[in-house]
Amino acid sequence: MKPIGIIHTPFTTLGNMPIQPNGAENSIAEIVLNNEFLDGLLDLDSFSHIYLIYLFHRSKGYDLKVVPFLDNQEHGVFATRAPRRPNPIGLSIVKILSVHGNIIQVAGADVLDGTPILDIKPYIEQFDKVEKSSCGWLKISEQGVAKKRSDNRFILK
Amino acid sequence: MKPIGIIHTPFTTLGNMPIQPNGAENSIAEIVLNNEFLDGLLDLDSFSHIYLIYLFHRSKGYDLKVVPFLDNQEHGVFATRAPRRPNPIGLSIVKILSVHGNIIQVAGADVLDGTPILDIKPYIEQFDKVEKSSCGWLKISEQGVAKKRSDNRFILK
Repeated sequence: MKPIGIIHTPFTTLGNMPIQPNGAENSIAEIVLNNEFLDGLLDLDSFSHIYLIYLFHRSKGYDLKVVPFLDNQEHGVFATRAPRRPNPIGLSIVKILSVHGNIIQVAGADVLDGTPILDIKPYIEQFDKVEKSSCGWLKISEQGVAKKRSDNRFILK
Repeated sequence: MKPIGIIHTPFTTLGNMPIQPNGAENSIAEIVLNNEFLDGLLDLDSFSHIYLIYLFHRSKGYDLKVVPFLDNQEHGVFATRAPRRPNPIGLSIVKILSVHGNIIQVAGADVLDGTPILDIKPYIEQFDKVEKSSCGWLKISEQGVAKKRSDNRFILK
């Protein structure tokens, strides 16, 4: 695994970030793909949304039980989106604004500036939209999620 | 990056698989998590759906332009979900049927038997459901996707 590029976002410190894309929807970010992969972007601009798969490069180690930003109770790390995971892989859906050369401008990246990108995949409604889902411990309004910011709990001491 | 577990599915050959979860929705699969990560599953069963992030362990190398199963035209690999990618990471949404000990039984895994799992994340509608999206080159009915099977094009020669 090696990065295919890097993302530049307005979020330069871990301590005050939107915790999910819908808290960053007005934030514009730029993915700079390594030039060697340029041909891989052909027709990407025909999609409205993409998955970003990236490294939580500032996370070291992991806990199997965590108290996530959205709750005050412990949950298994695989039942959360917390960054300190056995494999520090992050996943976010962002909206494509433009693709020019090796630069993809996107909205909604809840990602730290300088994060290494591992993969980009198109969001395909027929595969990815779950019509009816339930989300266990997470009982918070959408507005609550959007306004919520990170704190220092996952920052490497 | 090392696997956190493995998934057992009915799909033992690459040549005749559903190409996406909605072609595998009646297929039951079992994720066997390595015992060391057992505590990470706490409360996972309160979610209905999860993302599986896994290795395309049978893929070697990549092409930057590919003709995907769903089209007869070339597209950039990042505008497809094809397995031969610069980082061979797969992503699927599956439905949780049960969690017992370190075994997660799921429906809808369009994944090869024996695939190493890298991460499990809860599907959270507030973050992950895109209400309005467009998917470029992909113009195929949902039924068409569900019935479509893989062929040999991505198999290592």
